[in-house]
Amino acid sequence: MALRHIALFRWREGTTAEQISRVGEALGVLPEAIPELIDYSFGPDEGLSEGNFDFAVVADVADAAGYAVYRDHPDHQAALAVVRPLLAERSALQLEIPDIDRR
Amino acid sequence: MALRHIALFRWREGTTAEQISRVGEALGVLPEAIPELIDYSFGPDEGLSEGNFDFAVVADVADAAGYAVYRDHPDHQAALAVVRPLLAERSALQLEIPDIDRR
Repeated sequence: MALRHIALFRWREGTTAEQISRVGEALGVLPEAIPELIDYSFGPDEGLSEGNFDFAVVADVADAAGYAVYRDHPDHQAALAVVRPLLAERSALQLEIPDIDRR
Repeated sequence: MALRHIALFRWREGTTAEQISRVGEALGVLPEAIPELIDYSFGPDEGLSEGNFDFAVVADVADAAGYAVYRDHPDHQAALAVVRPLLAERSALQLEIPDIDRR
């Protein structure tokens, strides 16, 4: 089994495209910086359903230890420092998933 | 590109393990019933972080048309009928992800 971390964000009213682009830049460096990330996806909601959150991050790691490395990594903490001031709401969860292959 | 649908649930106080097990059974039939599902993961939160939601569903499909097939499929609607009475809160989103291989 592997472990999937999911975080959904809802941005504060007035959050700009430029601010969200900075979030993407801060997250985009993480797959190279953190080898514990087996798969890493993030991006804005596609606008297919009303009431959706605005942005998702999905981090697949081997296990709880790998998740802790990701969570506490300085580059991830730096990304959180970009995300936090924009957050109106956050939903998160970690679930077990079948073993996955590195992309 | 492919499309990833994410739904996070928080159960009402008093939701039983048996009720959650029925949710798992209702969702478990969907990968065979809905060929549009390229990958499908669901399960409870692993309890690694405080404040997390309780249960996640992640459905990977080719595109918005595949997502609509999943969303409207009678077996998915039947699963939603099991989930809805238990819901205190739901967060959802669809995001683009790189192309994925069928498991």
